[in-house]
Amino acid sequence: MASTGKVAIVIGSRSDYDIVKPALGVLDKFGVEGEIRIISAHRTPKEAHDYVASAEERGIEVIIGVAGKAAHLAGVIAGYTTLPVIALPIATSFMGGLDSLLSMVQMPKGVPVATVAVNGADNAALLAVQILAVKYPELKEKLIQYKEDMRKKVVEDDLALQAELGK
Amino acid sequence: MASTGKVAIVIGSRSDYDIVKPALGVLDKFGVEGEIRIISAHRTPKEAHDYVASAEERGIEVIIGVAGKAAHLAGVIAGYTTLPVIALPIATSFMGGLDSLLSMVQMPKGVPVATVAVNGADNAALLAVQILAVKYPELKEKLIQYKEDMRKKVVEDDLALQAELGK
Amino acid sequence: MASTGKVAIVIGSRSDYDIVKPALGVLDKFGVEGEIRIISAHRTPKEAHDYVASAEERGIEVIIGVAGKAAHLAGVIAGYTTLPVIALPIATSFMGGLDSLLSMVQMPKGVPVATVAVNGADNAALLAVQILAVKYPELKEKLIQYKEDMRKKVVEDDLALQAELGK
Amino acid sequence: MASTGKVAIVIGSRSDYDIVKPALGVLDKFGVEGEIRIISAHRTPKEAHDYVASAEERGIEVIIGVAGKAAHLAGVIAGYTTLPVIALPIATSFMGGLDSLLSMVQMPKGVPVATVAVNGADNAALLAVQILAVKYPELKEKLIQYKEDMRKKVVEDDLALQAELGK
Amino acid sequence: MASTGKVAIVIGSRSDYDIVKPALGVLDKFGVEGEIRIISAHRTPKEAHDYVASAEERGIEVIIGVAGKAAHLAGVIAGYTTLPVIALPIATSFMGGLDSLLSMVQMPKGVPVATVAVNGADNAALLAVQILAVKYPELKEKLIQYKEDMRKKVVEDDLALQAELGK
Amino acid sequence: MASTGKVAIVIGSRSDYDIVKPALGVLDKFGVEGEIRIISAHRTPKEAHDYVASAEERGIEVIIGVAGKAAHLAGVIAGYTTLPVIALPIATSFMGGLDSLLSMVQMPKGVPVATVAVNGADNAALLAVQILAVKYPELKEKLIQYKEDMRKKVVEDDLALQAELGK
Amino acid sequence: MASTGKVAIVIGSRSDYDIVKPALGVLDKFGVEGEIRIISAHRTPKEAHDYVASAEERGIEVIIGVAGKAAHLAGVIAGYTTLPVIALPIATSFMGGLDSLLSMVQMPKGVPVATVAVNGADNAALLAVQILAVKYPELKEKLIQYKEDMRKKVVEDDLALQAELGK
Amino acid sequence: MASTGKVAIVIGSRSDYDIVKPALGVLDKFGVEGEIRIISAHRTPKEAHDYVASAEERGIEVIIGVAGKAAHLAGVIAGYTTLPVIALPIATSFMGGLDSLLSMVQMPKGVPVATVAVNGADNAALLAVQILAVKYPELKEKLIQYKEDMRKKVVEDDLALQAELGK
Repeated sequence: MASTGKVAIVIGSRSDYDIVKPALGVLDKFGVEGEIRIISAHRTPKEAHDYVASAEERGIEVIIGVAGKAAHLAGVIAGYTTLPVIALPIATSFMGGLDSLLSMVQMPKGVPVATVAVNGADNAALLAVQILAVKYPELKEKLIQYKEDMRKKVVEDDLALQAELGK
Repeated sequence: MASTGKVAIVIGSRSDYDIVKPALGVLDKFGVEGEIRIISAHRTPKEAHDYVASAEERGIEVIIGVAGKAAHLAGVIAGYTTLPVIALPIATSFMGGLDSLLSMVQMPKGVPVATVAVNGADNAALLAVQILAVKYPELKEKLIQYKEDMRKKVVEDDLALQAELGK
Repeated sequence: MASTGKVAIVIGSRSDYDIVKPALGVLDKFGVEGEIRIISAHRTPKEAHDYVASAEERGIEVIIGVAGKAAHLAGVIAGYTTLPVIALPIATSFMGGLDSLLSMVQMPKGVPVATVAVNGADNAALLAVQILAVKYPELKEKLIQYKEDMRKKVVEDDLALQAELGK
Repeated sequence: MASTGKVAIVIGSRSDYDIVKPALGVLDKFGVEGEIRIISAHRTPKEAHDYVASAEERGIEVIIGVAGKAAHLAGVIAGYTTLPVIALPIATSFMGGLDSLLSMVQMPKGVPVATVAVNGADNAALLAVQILAVKYPELKEKLIQYKEDMRKKVVEDDLALQAELGK
Repeated sequence: MASTGKVAIVIGSRSDYDIVKPALGVLDKFGVEGEIRIISAHRTPKEAHDYVASAEERGIEVIIGVAGKAAHLAGVIAGYTTLPVIALPIATSFMGGLDSLLSMVQMPKGVPVATVAVNGADNAALLAVQILAVKYPELKEKLIQYKEDMRKKVVEDDLALQAELGK
Repeated sequence: MASTGKVAIVIGSRSDYDIVKPALGVLDKFGVEGEIRIISAHRTPKEAHDYVASAEERGIEVIIGVAGKAAHLAGVIAGYTTLPVIALPIATSFMGGLDSLLSMVQMPKGVPVATVAVNGADNAALLAVQILAVKYPELKEKLIQYKEDMRKKVVEDDLALQAELGK
Repeated sequence: MASTGKVAIVIGSRSDYDIVKPALGVLDKFGVEGEIRIISAHRTPKEAHDYVASAEERGIEVIIGVAGKAAHLAGVIAGYTTLPVIALPIATSFMGGLDSLLSMVQMPKGVPVATVAVNGADNAALLAVQILAVKYPELKEKLIQYKEDMRKKVVEDDLALQAELGK
Repeated sequence: MASTGKVAIVIGSRSDYDIVKPALGVLDKFGVEGEIRIISAHRTPKEAHDYVASAEERGIEVIIGVAGKAAHLAGVIAGYTTLPVIALPIATSFMGGLDSLLSMVQMPKGVPVATVAVNGADNAALLAVQILAVKYPELKEKLIQYKEDMRKKVVEDDLALQAELGK
C-alpha cells in the first residue's frame, strides 16, 4: 500500500502522553504513519532543532507540537521548518489552559501554527489527516467516510434518546 | 505554469475585508490562486453550504474562514467539508477578540479548524501555503526562500539598529 | 386541554443530556409540550437544517440550542429560522464555560439568540415558557404562581434558618 | 391596523441612550410599538418597581433592560414580572464589558433574562420582535422578509467585492 | 453591656449559609449583634425592600449582602438604604466567581458597595466591625487586640516552622 | 459646626490625582473634612507607615487607598491600622484594570479592605461618608437627601427624554 | 567549603509551606544556604520590615516572596530592600491564581520583582541560584550540569517511550 | 573604572525598540554596560542560539528578552543559557498583553525566566542591576541612592500637591 503521509507528534514531557494518545489512534485509523517523540523546546533545544531537520529528511509532512503552560514547542518547531505545524495546547490548572492556548495561537507574523482546541488531541490528528488529504486522495475518501460515520453516530444517538424517552 | 493550489478566503461581512487583504497579498506572492468571498454563516446559511460544495468541485484545496464575535463561520464551513479549514479570528472591542478566538479554536471533537492569531491575516495565508506545499514542491522552495528573507530582514534590522546606536 | 405551545430542545451530543434534563421537567410542570433532539451543527449540518424547517412546520414555537466549547448550535439554528432561539451554554473545563458563553451570546447583528446562564437549564426552559406566555394566557397564570411559589420557598427557608438559629 | 405588540426599553441612565437608539429603529421598522424610559435599578428602585407593574397593565409584552458595569437592571425587572426580559449589556472600559455581560447573563435559577451581545441594541429589539411574532403572525412575515433582505445584502456585498476585484 | 452595633447578613439562598457562617462567628467574637436572613433580590424583591426598611428602623447599622453568579443582592440593598453595605461575592464554578465579583464591585456612581474577597466571609464581618468601631470605641480596642493576636499567630507559626526545620 | 468626621485619601502617585479629585468634591459636598496625600507603599514604605500612625492620632476615621497595577497601597495601609480602609482601583491599560482590582479586593483573611469599582472615585468618597454616617447623624440626613437628589435627577432625565421623543 | 550565597524564602502563611518545600530542595541540591520564614506583609508588617533589614545584614543575597490572592508580600519586601526579590504566586481557587500573579508581576516603575510561574517553587529557587551564579562561579558549573541532567532526562524519557511503543 | 557588569537586551523586532529604550537609560544611569539586539526566536532561531552562546563568552551576565503576543523569546534564550533571563512582556491589543505575559511567566519546571510587568522596561533594567549588584558592591550603593531618590521624589510630589491645595 502506498504511503499516505507521515505525521510527527512532539510532546514536551512524558506527562503529556496520556492526553495525546488518542491522536495516535486517529492517525492509525486513517492509515497515516505516525511517530511520537518527547522533545522539549527548553530542556532539549538542540535535540528539538536536530529532530525537526531530520524529520523533514525522513519524509515527515506535518508536525504536531504539544505543550502546556508557556507552550513554546509548536512555535519553536515552526521556526525551524516550513512544514505545517499543528499546535495542541494542554489544559493546565491555570484558567483551564488559557496560558497554553495563548502561548500557541498568538504567533507573530511570518511563523504561523495551526492551533486546535485545548486538549483536542483527536482534532490535532484529524487536522493533520485533512492536510495530508490535500495530497493523498485516498485520505480524502476516508475523511468523507469518517464524517459520514460521525453523522450516523449522532443520528443513532438521537434515535436512542427518542426511544429512551418513549417517542 | 502549473497550478500550485487554490485557496478560498471567506469573510462574514464586508467590514472584515481590510483586515484580510494582506492574506491575498501573501497568496499572490507565492503564486497561489486565491479568491475572496463574502458569505455569512448566519445570514446566508444556504449560500455558505452551496459555496463550500462548489468550492471543492472547483478545486479549492484550503478554505480560510474569517469572522469576529460569535465567530461560527470557520466551524460551519468545516462541518460541510473535509478540506482543511483555517480560522482567522477578527479582533473585537470585547477583550481584544477573545470572543472570536474561543468561538473558533474550541471546536468539538471530529471537526477541527486550524486557528491562527487574532487578526493574523498574513499567517492565515501563509499556513494555507504551507499546507499546499505538502503537495506542491514548488511552494516548498518558495517557503524556504520566504523564511530566509524573513531571517535576513531581522538581521538587517539589527544591523541598522547597531549602526543607529553607533556600535 | 388546548395547547400552550411547543418547545424544542436541541443538544449537540448525548453527553449534554444530563445537564439539560431539568429543562424538560420545567416544561412539563407548565404543561408545555417539549421535545429533545440530538443534532449537531457541525457533525449533522444537513439534519440541523432539516430539523429546524420541520420543527417550524410541526408548530414548534421556541427552540433551545444547547452546546459547549465553540458552541455554534444555537447561532446556526437562528440562521435557519425566525423563531426565538434560546442559547444554553454548557460549562466546560476551560474557564468554566467562557468559551461556550461567548460563542453564543456574542451573535452578530441581525441574528440574535437569547442567552441564559452557563448550565442554566431551568432558566432556559423558564424563558421559553415566558415567551410562550405572551401568546398563551394560561401560562401567564402559571408563571405568576411559579413566582409566588419561589417567593414562599425563600420565605420558608428563611423561617427555617431563623428557627435553626433559635430566633 | 391591529397592534403587533408593545415593547419597553428601560435604560439605567441617559448616557446609554445613544447605544440603544438603533433598537427603537428596529421596532419601528417592524411596526412594533416601543417606549423608552430612563429608570435606574439602584437610584430609582421604587420607580423601577412601579414602572414594571404599570407596564404590564398598559399591555407591554416584552421589556428590554439596558445597563453597564454591575448591570442589575434587567435582573431586577425580571424579579418584578413574568414578562420575558431581554438584557442588553453595555460595553464598559473594563474588559470590554465583561462586567456588564456577566452581571446580566448569570442570573440564578428561577429568574432568567434573555441576554444578547454586548452593545447589541439591534439584536435586543429583533429578539423582542421574534418573541412577539410567536403571537402576532404579521410579524412572522416581516421577520422572514427581514432575513431575506439581510441575505440579499450579503449577496450584494459579495457581488460588489467581486466586481471591485475584477472577478 | 452597652450595644456596640448591629449587623445584618443577608444571603440570597440557603446554600450560601455554610460559606457565610464564619462571619457570624467573627461578629460574635467582637460582641457585635448579628442577624442572618435569607432574602433574594430576585425571588423576594418585596421582602428585600421591606427588610431593609425594617432593618434600619430596628437599628441595624451595617448590612452584608452575600450572593453568587449575577450577584445583585448587595447592590439592590444599597439602592434601598444609606447604610454602608458590604458585598461578599460567593465563588461559583464560572471562573472562580468572577461573575459574582464583577456583579458586585462594579456598582455605578452614587450607589457604592464595599466589596471584599470572593468567599471572604471573615473579612466581610471584620470590615463591618471596623466600620462600627468608628462609632463604638470598645470595638476599636478589640480590633487592636485581634490584630495583635493575628500577629502573634504568624510569629508562632514561624517559630514552630523553625523548630520543625531544626533551626 | 461640629465635625462630621475626617477622611484621608492616599494616592500612590501624582498621576492618580485627576481620577481621584471627584472624591474630594464629594467629601466637600457632605461637609466631611478630607485630606489627600501622595504616599507610595513601595517607594515610601516608611512614610506610609508613619502617615497611617499619625493619621489615626489626628483623628482620621476612614482611609481611602488609591492605586493601580499591583495595587498594594490599600492593603498595606490596612496592615497598619484598624480603621476601615476603602480601596479604589485605578484603571490600567491591562485588561481595564483587572490587575488593580484583584490586587485590592482579594485581601487575605484578617485584613479586609472595602473595594469599590475601578476608577469609582465618587463611590469611594460616598462609601466613606456612609461609614461616617453610622456615627454622625447629620451625615445620615445628607445621605438621604443625596439619594433623593439622585432619584430626582433620573426622573428628570427621563422626563426630558420623553419630551425630546415627543411623548 | 566557601559559601555560594544565601537565599531567604518568605511565605505569608504556614499553608504555603507544602507548595514551597521543593524550593528548599533545589537550594540544597546546589549547596546554596536557604532559610524559610513565615512573615505576613499584612499581619506582621513590622516583622516583615525588620526581617528584611536583618536579612541583608546577615548576608542574604536573594529573597523569594511567596503569597496568594492579593499577594503583596514580594512587592512589600522589594520596597524595603535593593536585593533582587523573586515573586512566587500561589495558585488560588480564583481563576487558577490570576489574582496572585497579577498582584505580583504588575509592580510599578522603580520597584521590580522577578515573577515566576504560578506554583513554580522549583523555578523560584532555580532563578535564585542563577542570580547567585553571576557572583559564584561554582554555581555556574552546577547549573550547567543541572541543565545537562535535565536534557538527559528528556532524552531518556523519549527512549523509554520509543521502547514502550516498540520503535 | 572597573566594570559593573554587562546586560544584553534582545528584542524580537524593531517595533519593540521604543518601548524598551528606557531600559537602556536605566542601565546607563547605573554605569552598567548594555547592548541591545534585534533577534527573533522564530525568524532567526540560529542567530538566537549563536547570540546567546557568544553573549556568555563576551561576558554578558544578564539577558533581558523582550517580546509580545506568543512571546517565546525569553524562554528560548533561557533554554540556551544558565544566565538569569529577565522577561519583559510587551502590551498587545489582545487583553492588554495577557498573551505576552502568560507566554513568558508560565515557564515549565527547570527553565525559569524572571518576568516583570507588561511594558515595564525600566523595571526590567532595574532588576538586571539588582542582580548584578549581588556581585558588584558599587551597584548596591547606587541602588540605595536610587531608592532614596525615588522616595524623595514622592515626598516632593506630595509637598507640591499640598502646596497646590493650599495646605
